[in-house]
Amino acid sequence: MKLFRKQYSQPGTQPGVIHDEKKGELTLSLFDFNASQCVEKLNATAEQCATFLDSNNETWVHVQGDPDKDTFTQLAKDFGIHELFIEDVSNLGQRPKIDIQEEQIFMILTLPVQTELGVSLQQISLFLMKNTVVSFCGGKFNPFTTINNRLKLPTSRLRKRHIDFLFYSLIDTVIDWGFPVLEQYADRIDATEELLLENHDKDILQKIHLLRREVLLLRRQIWPHREMLNTLLRDDTSELIESDTKLFLRDCYDHSISILELTETYHEMANGLMELYMSVVSLKLNDVMRVLTIIATLFIPPTFVVGIYGMNFSRDAGPLNMPELYSPYGYLGVWAVMIFMIVGMLLFFKKHKWI
Amino acid sequence: MKLFRKQYSQPGTQPGVIHDEKKGELTLSLFDFNASQCVEKLNATAEQCATFLDSNNETWVHVQGDPDKDTFTQLAKDFGIHELFIEDVSNLGQRPKIDIQEEQIFMILTLPVQTELGVSLQQISLFLMKNTVVSFCGGKFNPFTTINNRLKLPTSRLRKRHIDFLFYSLIDTVIDWGFPVLEQYADRIDATEELLLENHDKDILQKIHLLRREVLLLRRQIWPHREMLNTLLRDDTSELIESDTKLFLRDCYDHSISILELTETYHEMANGLMELYMSVVSLKLNDVMRVLTIIATLFIPPTFVVGIYGMNFSRDAGPLNMPELYSPYGYLGVWAVMIFMIVGMLLFFKKHKWI
Amino acid sequence: MKLFRKQYSQPGTQPGVIHDEKKGELTLSLFDFNASQCVEKLNATAEQCATFLDSNNETWVHVQGDPDKDTFTQLAKDFGIHELFIEDVSNLGQRPKIDIQEEQIFMILTLPVQTELGVSLQQISLFLMKNTVVSFCGGKFNPFTTINNRLKLPTSRLRKRHIDFLFYSLIDTVIDWGFPVLEQYADRIDATEELLLENHDKDILQKIHLLRREVLLLRRQIWPHREMLNTLLRDDTSELIESDTKLFLRDCYDHSISILELTETYHEMANGLMELYMSVVSLKLNDVMRVLTIIATLFIPPTFVVGIYGMNFSRDAGPLNMPELYSPYGYLGVWAVMIFMIVGMLLFFKKHKWI
Amino acid sequence: MKLFRKQYSQPGTQPGVIHDEKKGELTLSLFDFNASQCVEKLNATAEQCATFLDSNNETWVHVQGDPDKDTFTQLAKDFGIHELFIEDVSNLGQRPKIDIQEEQIFMILTLPVQTELGVSLQQISLFLMKNTVVSFCGGKFNPFTTINNRLKLPTSRLRKRHIDFLFYSLIDTVIDWGFPVLEQYADRIDATEELLLENHDKDILQKIHLLRREVLLLRRQIWPHREMLNTLLRDDTSELIESDTKLFLRDCYDHSISILELTETYHEMANGLMELYMSVVSLKLNDVMRVLTIIATLFIPPTFVVGIYGMNFSRDAGPLNMPELYSPYGYLGVWAVMIFMIVGMLLFFKKHKWI
Amino acid sequence: MKLFRKQYSQPGTQPGVIHDEKKGELTLSLFDFNASQCVEKLNATAEQCATFLDSNNETWVHVQGDPDKDTFTQLAKDFGIHELFIEDVSNLGQRPKIDIQEEQIFMILTLPVQTELGVSLQQISLFLMKNTVVSFCGGKFNPFTTINNRLKLPTSRLRKRHIDFLFYSLIDTVIDWGFPVLEQYADRIDATEELLLENHDKDILQKIHLLRREVLLLRRQIWPHREMLNTLLRDDTSELIESDTKLFLRDCYDHSISILELTETYHEMANGLMELYMSVVSLKLNDVMRVLTIIATLFIPPTFVVGIYGMNFSRDAGPLNMPELYSPYGYLGVWAVMIFMIVGMLLFFKKHKWI
Ligand SMILES: [Mg+2]
Ligand SMILES: [Mg+2]
Ligand SMILES: [Mg+2]
Ligand SMILES: [Mg+2]
Ligand SMILES: [Mg+2]
Ligand SMILES: [Mg+2]
Ligand SMILES: [Mg+2]
Ligand SMILES: [Mg+2]
Ligand SMILES: [Mg+2]
Ligand SMILES: [Mg+2]
Ligand SMILES: [Mg+2]
Ligand SMILES: [Mg+2]
Ligand SMILES: [Mg+2]
Ligand SMILES: [Mg+2]
Ligand SMILES: [Mg+2]
Ligand SMILES: [Mg+2]
Ligand SMILES: [Mg+2]
Ligand SMILES: [Mg+2]
Ligand SMILES: [Mg+2]
Ligand SMILES: [Mg+2]
Ligand SMILES: [Mg+2]
Ligand SMILES: [Mg+2]
Ligand SMILES: [Mg+2]
Ligand SMILES: [Mg+2]
Ligand SMILES: [Mg+2]
Ligand SMILES: [Mg+2]
Ligand SMILES: [Mg+2]
Ligand SMILES: [Mg+2]
Ligand SMILES: [Mg+2]
Ligand SMILES: [Mg+2]
Ligand SMILES: [Mg+2]
Repeated sequence: MKLFRKQYSQPGTQPGVIHDEKKGELTLSLFDFNASQCVEKLNATAEQCATFLDSNNETWVHVQGDPDKDTFTQLAKDFGIHELFIEDVSNLGQRPKIDIQEEQIFMILTLPVQTELGVSLQQISLFLMKNTVVSFCGGKFNPFTTINNRLKLPTSRLRKRHIDFLFYSLIDTVIDWGFPVLEQYADRIDATEELLLENHDKDILQKIHLLRREVLLLRRQIWPHREMLNTLLRDDTSELIESDTKLFLRDCYDHSISILELTETYHEMANGLMELYMSVVSLKLNDVMRVLTIIATLFIPPTFVVGIYGMNFSRDAGPLNMPELYSPYGYLGVWAVMIFMIVGMLLFFKKHKWI
Repeated sequence: MKLFRKQYSQPGTQPGVIHDEKKGELTLSLFDFNASQCVEKLNATAEQCATFLDSNNETWVHVQGDPDKDTFTQLAKDFGIHELFIEDVSNLGQRPKIDIQEEQIFMILTLPVQTELGVSLQQISLFLMKNTVVSFCGGKFNPFTTINNRLKLPTSRLRKRHIDFLFYSLIDTVIDWGFPVLEQYADRIDATEELLLENHDKDILQKIHLLRREVLLLRRQIWPHREMLNTLLRDDTSELIESDTKLFLRDCYDHSISILELTETYHEMANGLMELYMSVVSLKLNDVMRVLTIIATLFIPPTFVVGIYGMNFSRDAGPLNMPELYSPYGYLGVWAVMIFMIVGMLLFFKKHKWI
Repeated sequence: MKLFRKQYSQPGTQPGVIHDEKKGELTLSLFDFNASQCVEKLNATAEQCATFLDSNNETWVHVQGDPDKDTFTQLAKDFGIHELFIEDVSNLGQRPKIDIQEEQIFMILTLPVQTELGVSLQQISLFLMKNTVVSFCGGKFNPFTTINNRLKLPTSRLRKRHIDFLFYSLIDTVIDWGFPVLEQYADRIDATEELLLENHDKDILQKIHLLRREVLLLRRQIWPHREMLNTLLRDDTSELIESDTKLFLRDCYDHSISILELTETYHEMANGLMELYMSVVSLKLNDVMRVLTIIATLFIPPTFVVGIYGMNFSRDAGPLNMPELYSPYGYLGVWAVMIFMIVGMLLFFKKHKWI
Repeated sequence: MKLFRKQYSQPGTQPGVIHDEKKGELTLSLFDFNASQCVEKLNATAEQCATFLDSNNETWVHVQGDPDKDTFTQLAKDFGIHELFIEDVSNLGQRPKIDIQEEQIFMILTLPVQTELGVSLQQISLFLMKNTVVSFCGGKFNPFTTINNRLKLPTSRLRKRHIDFLFYSLIDTVIDWGFPVLEQYADRIDATEELLLENHDKDILQKIHLLRREVLLLRRQIWPHREMLNTLLRDDTSELIESDTKLFLRDCYDHSISILELTETYHEMANGLMELYMSVVSLKLNDVMRVLTIIATLFIPPTFVVGIYGMNFSRDAGPLNMPELYSPYGYLGVWAVMIFMIVGMLLFFKKHKWI
Repeated sequence: MKLFRKQYSQPGTQPGVIHDEKKGELTLSLFDFNASQCVEKLNATAEQCATFLDSNNETWVHVQGDPDKDTFTQLAKDFGIHELFIEDVSNLGQRPKIDIQEEQIFMILTLPVQTELGVSLQQISLFLMKNTVVSFCGGKFNPFTTINNRLKLPTSRLRKRHIDFLFYSLIDTVIDWGFPVLEQYADRIDATEELLLENHDKDILQKIHLLRREVLLLRRQIWPHREMLNTLLRDDTSELIESDTKLFLRDCYDHSISILELTETYHEMANGLMELYMSVVSLKLNDVMRVLTIIATLFIPPTFVVGIYGMNFSRDAGPLNMPELYSPYGYLGVWAVMIFMIVGMLLFFKKHKWI
């Protein structure tokens, strides 16, 4: 995950303008449906989508892929999307936000996706208007394929109810993709914890740091969801969302709190792992130093003793020069001294529980 | 305790659907009572329970055990429980929540249970309707056996008052099970603290880490109880709870705050234990190193000195080669130097309070 | 201070019941007074107290000592105290709470007491009714003796004003007992700080840890006082407290904030002491290691050198074997090399400011 | 970045007075425009600006550079700016603030600028009045050059709309300059993180500390922007800002939140880098000590052994003096002992995973 | 700064009583003024002050010095100050507070003063009544001398406006004295930071700890100012402060926020310095240990080697005893082995970037 993900225009430039370089690949899919029928158009063009605008049916246009200036401008014009919103949609990496107006509700959400290279974050933008939903998903992964399938079933509640229920279903799907990602983080924390108690090399340190960093960034990016759903639930300026759908949104709101609290908890766990790492390293250093100290204090003093009797003071010069060397029990005496020293040290270590 | 406990459906699937794999073992018990009589049916079926619905008596159905799709669907239909709620009941590991409607109050609570393998968390779901309470308890331990016994006594307040008093009693019981669990954590913290000041091996480190982790997870799971009880107390959309019962709920609310604050305190204590552990390890390392330094600095310099006089420079080559060896007081002189060195060091250590 | 102080009934048991085992020793004292007279009865019985209920005078009953089932039940019945409140009074170790009803105000406060064994916490429970105050103090220390004396003076404001002023005076007294306790903690922090900079053994570590633990527990227990006083000040459901007394309560409220902030500050100071301890230990380790390193690096290399010339290679085997030993300036040369080594090291240490 | 940036008058001096020493160099530029025409005057004088006051066009005066007493006093008088505000404008280093009155809105913002010497903070002050905007920018960098260019285009929305849209554009520009600065901090964090895992000298420590300090100071200085924009959006005392412009301000508000959250995140990342640094240093110390311990424990015991047989106890004194030296397999035996010791140690290290 | 500064009466004693021991030295100064004249009386008595009470002019009495029971009681009686307030004024070390009544506003503020012995905190108490201000300043330093001088100038706004402007000016002066104190702390932090990167002895540790402690205590003591000024600004129970003065108070409110945020920042900086200190100490320990390890691992193995050939195994006992000693290239061979060892170690250190 990148620390800085936001695309932005040069400060001072005109608001609501899509940068000329936005020439991305994208696909449009269109669903026009009511309780009795459902038209599906994959790979539609912006013009085709516009023709369904005035139908009495519910219409859902989904745009998957990188922002493209021409398509976005056309869609904005046809569907009456404000230029500031379409700028937000085209500059990926936005903070999640909600803007409720009488005739239009605009939301940006962050979708965490588990890929092979780790967790990546995709920007989802949703517009709810009368009879119409337009959704944008920057990136490759389309989180809404299950919704597509449910739409085709005539018995599905998506078909029987108004478009606000589809809008809820899209939000709910984005929020719910947080659960598998968080489950994976829980597994990583558990695995690191186990590994840590056996080992403590630089790889684990890097793993912990990366984990902490990812959870921190994830938290920042999904933090606003809760407040946004709360705003949506309490809103009374728009009548686009029926009161019965609000019960479902409340359930979705609970999920967003649940996800946020899990992220908070994992963040604190990751902090705890760093502290645990430090403790394990300190403990290991203690072990190493104790071994060194035991060996050194056992052998350095007797080494000094044997050094004494390796000196070459000449007995011929006088009787005070190393008389021990000429005692018949000198060698045994030295061993006695050394064994006494070593046993003393061992008792000292025993007493201090070093061995 | 698992880091990630929540059961969830695949993102995008239809809301309010119980997963086909939910085929758990469960037992239903039914109590139909008023001030003068009490019918108890253990091991009832969903159909049997439905027959008591229209009685003028108060009816309590308790479902103990793992979620089961068929039973749950039947109960939901008979008692008029919303599909979103029954989904929450069947996906164990939910965050505690409350949903108050005019005709129905729905609560999910977390019950901490002290088992032989440590503290485990069970999900309790409660529905209060006019004259009826339905309660679900996922897991083996039934926390409500005392309530069962109290119900059979004709003098019990549970019998004399309306069903909202039973509802309060169930909530109160779940909250109160927190106290023995927290008392146990207090004991563990105290025990670890004492152990720590004598010892500091990896086992204690692991114990502290586990303690911290458990308290953190417990805190996350019981955190919402306070806010839920507050919501229940301030609610005025539903008249299911009589004003006299609210005094009892307020007492229960105090308990939930008390439990939350204890958990917070123990969390901070566990953090403090980790810091204390680090301090003890550092202090111990200091001791070890001081011993090593004392021994090494006492013996390394005299070892050098005796090494000098172990050299074999030939006196025959010239009179400058090691004349000390041929002095009559050479050996005594070396001892004097070495004792001077050692005493100097000992004084240095004394001055710095190392010995 | 115990981590877990709360007495509680088994989960699921009937609310409002005093446990049969509550058979404590307690003494009742009664004051019945108005501006012109004051009757004092020490060691009264519950029945005696009840006879003063209907007097037009102000009546204060103070119960000092451990909870007793019989006395408490009698008092509750006579004075019309709700069973839930009398249960709180009898289960010591409650979190401070307030419950305001039109005819009765109930408060639980925590009194910190400085004893010889350290700070202990006593539970104070207060009931204010029309013309009557009942106070309970669990524990041996009676904090209200000064109030008793003031009551006997006819000129005292306690006599001239209504019973709500006595109620305020009791609260104020309990809050104010926090100041000497906190002053003592300030002294302990200062003393530990000074000690720490000279010394750093395990005793100090234990002292710091204990200090931190005590302040943390104290904070938890007095934290609710502020909010309770605020609730009392803003309340308008009861007219038991006259508006003029509220000015006095506001002063008491300021004291409770002041005490809370001091506790917060001392908590942060205690945390800082733990960090300071770690720093001092690290610094000391650094000193120890520097000494070891200086000694070892000064003497290990020359010890190697003198070892070389202690070898016994036979000159007879060839002229390449240790010719230095047979040079007339060999010994001096070795000294030169060793002095060069040692001086080099000393310069290195000087440069790195180790000596 | 300086820790203390605020310029302030001596405590007690009269409010609203500009210090006599404020004699800075500054340039005034004036834009007087409506949809059809735009007059631009660079290097204008205060008197010239005043002549445009009563025009029906929109008028923007921009003051770039260090505060100057005379010019500021003149401008304040001509444009009716309150003395307290002009004092704030002239004392650079203010905390961002907003003051809304019916006829005038005053804002102080902080502009982070990326210079060659690091990030510096400039104070921007804005006054919105009917038809008039006055802006002050202390420092050399003019952030509004792009706005100047847009103003000259007749098609620009700045020309078509009222002066409140220019006011919004200035605020938006100041806020948006935060993005390149934060992008640069993200790069620095990433670079430091990579560097850190390879290296850990004092330079990196200083870099991390500086990074943390800068982000902390930046956070303090941009923190109030969010609340200020919120105040502006919710205000209803002034009608200077049209409701359509508020949609644009809401977008700007989102940006300010986004910048604040990024700063928070980077602050936590910088804290994490400091902890990572400590961990890397500890780990490295562990490595160093392990090498020392391996070498020392491998060689110190055999060194003792060879020392023994370097002693010179005289065999002539008795047969107990070092009989090993006279055994034909003595030397081989010593080697056997020493190899046994070394192999034992190596196995010990292997078992503890030190090698 | 003392940890515990509050003077307090014994718990349980009568409220509103000044302790008999309060016999301090103090001086009263009186200013009675209107737009056209100003009477100044230095060293006035309480009785003299009372005579000015009924004048139509504005009257300011300033009391400088330690509390004195007699003078305070007299002043309280004459000016109608409530006994609870006069008790607060006489017990120095209060937490800042505000009490607004219709006819009287009472404030306690904390004045930080930079003295030679460090920062000290003085208590300022202010009473605003109709036409009258009474101010108390405990301690020696009089912060209001500049105000005295401004009062004597007939052109001063203090003379032209009502007494509430003087009240604002006193508050503003007290708040503004925070800036020089904080500037000094910024300098100390910068100086310590620089010092720290060169040096790390116990003095610096003590400096950092003291800095942290002082900023923490300062923060506690000035924290309430912001909220107090906010209360004053939003109040509508009293009409003592004119609406025009509120604009000035709003400026003062901004200053109090600014000071609070600086204190918060410096607190976090001081915490950061402690962490930096720990890092520098760890880094230094690493350096020390690396030197020790390099020296020891370079010389210990060859010392073992030379030890081998210092053994005295007798060649006469058999040809297996130390044949190397009798090889003509033995000595050269040993040197070869030792140089190989040392070079190997040096390469190892090079590879691990230790040298
Ligand atoms: Mg957090
Ligand atoms: Mg934490
Ligand atoms: Mg955290
Ligand atoms: Mg946290
Ligand atoms: Mg943290
Ligand atoms: Mg931390
Ligand atoms: Mg906490
Ligand atoms: Mg916490
Ligand atoms: Mg804390
Ligand atoms: Mg914590
Ligand atoms: Mg903590
Ligand atoms: Mg922490
Ligand atoms: Mg704090
Ligand atoms: Mg803290
Ligand atoms: Mg704290
Ligand atoms: Mg702290
Ligand atoms: Mg901490
Ligand atoms: Mg912390
Ligand atoms: Mg932060
Ligand atoms: Mg943070
Ligand atoms: Mg922080
Ligand atoms: Mg944090
Ligand atoms: Mg932080
Ligand atoms: Mg942090
Ligand atoms: Mg931190
Ligand atoms: Mg802080
Ligand atoms: Mg902070
Ligand atoms: Mg802090
Ligand atoms: Mg902080
Ligand atoms: Mg911090
Ligand atoms: Mg910290």
